Amino acid sequence: METTAVCLLSGGLDSCVATRIAQDQGYSCHTLSFDYGQHHRKELEQAKQIAKALHVQKHTVFTLDLAQFGGSALFNHHKTVPHTPLQDIGKQIPPTYVPGRNTIFLTIALAYAETLQAQAVVIGANSRDYSGYPDCRPEYFQAFQQLANVATKQAVEGNPVQILTPLLHLSKAEIIKKGHALQAPFHLTWSCYQGQKRSCGNCESCQLRLQGFEEAGIPDPLPYVTYPSWYTLIKK
Amino acid sequence: METTAVCLLSGGLDSCVATRIAQDQGYSCHTLSFDYGQHHRKELEQAKQIAKALHVQKHTVFTLDLAQFGGSALFNHHKTVPHTPLQDIGKQIPPTYVPGRNTIFLTIALAYAETLQAQAVVIGANSRDYSGYPDCRPEYFQAFQQLANVATKQAVEGNPVQILTPLLHLSKAEIIKKGHALQAPFHLTWSCYQGQKRSCGNCESCQLRLQGFEEAGIPDPLPYVTYPSWYTLIKK
Repeated sequence: METTAVCLLSGGLDSCVATRIAQDQGYSCHTLSFDYGQHHRKELEQAKQIAKALHVQKHTVFTLDLAQFGGSALFNHHKTVPHTPLQDIGKQIPPTYVPGRNTIFLTIALAYAETLQAQAVVIGANSRDYSGYPDCRPEYFQAFQQLANVATKQAVEGNPVQILTPLLHLSKAEIIKKGHALQAPFHLTWSCYQGQKRSCGNCESCQLRLQGFEEAGIPDPLPYVTYPSWYTLIKK
Repeated sequence: METTAVCLLSGGLDSCVATRIAQDQGYSCHTLSFDYGQHHRKELEQAKQIAKALHVQKHTVFTLDLAQFGGSALFNHHKTVPHTPLQDIGKQIPPTYVPGRNTIFLTIALAYAETLQAQAVVIGANSRDYSGYPDCRPEYFQAFQQLANVATKQAVEGNPVQILTPLLHLSKAEIIKKGHALQAPFHLTWSCYQGQKRSCGNCESCQLRLQGFEEAGIPDPLPYVTYPSWYTLIKK
């Protein structure tokens, strides 16, 4: 029997690598992106291109207007995305935290998995670099698995969907090495909180990404407006 | 400090009573309905009218197109809603089961609660009459509470949202008696799976409702096309 997975695909690097890992493990992947009122549209476009490059079974964009509830810099155009010095990242819950975001995404992926009779939901969450987010911690995913074990018809019938978090305990550099080995299309991934043509190189997300490439010794194929002084690899 | 709750309001009888109970317990209630591609629109209109009659703080209709995933008679217009004999209700998972529905609704309510800094989410789920639904069982709500205890910023800060299920162990008759005592606007509630002007009196939902009123000895104020032979109270 074919094993099927629903993979959350954000357009970022982590979810791209997580999906490649699932494919490498033999899953037939259906990718799922969310149009949730985020600040910029670029990541949705990149998710679509990544899905195409990975030849997934089907890519779906699910529209969900979280913006009507407010509460995060990621969908409040009046709040500015903060610049956090690299050493302070992960020390507190950042203002870019979106209430309930991972829970909502996982829940909808779980429902989709049930309609597909899929065996797994794959999320590229990472607890090392995003320790400030409550919904990126191992105990959070354990609790979600417990919920999945009782929440659905599949679960009652003895086949609960497995929540797979292949990147949970990896560093960014390890994720990049893994993705590199699996020929993940890094050039199509987008991490910058600003939705400009080139990545800013300055926001929290750009810094974490470039630090990962630096540590992995693999040059980032994306062009940046500015590079941090510590970045020593090939600049585009 | 004012205690605030997000109450899921479907337009049905149970969620109306659950909201009244929350108000009676001192919660300032924000009601939340979902436009999720259901077969008929009547319940959304009734939810709005119930929210108005209960003078809630705010009523929100959240649009969520679950229909794109398929999988249930409630949003597949080609499947017919089945007629189940009363004695067989609850024996198996009914075809009206919507994959992940309560989980999605609760998750979005949890996110909304966090943006409001609310203390509770209230759901009128009932495990006695809906034992066939995996996501109406006590173990399901326990698992969801465990998830809520780790999922949010509020939870990390020591104030997890409480998931309240005031009707979970009550019979339909007990729910009706409780609602009657609290002057819940039963005349505005809608239970029928058919979205006609009058309730059919024949579908699973109508049967459970009328049986509850019959057992409570309180006449249902709604008019029905037909009444079951065992219904002995005043017919509209």
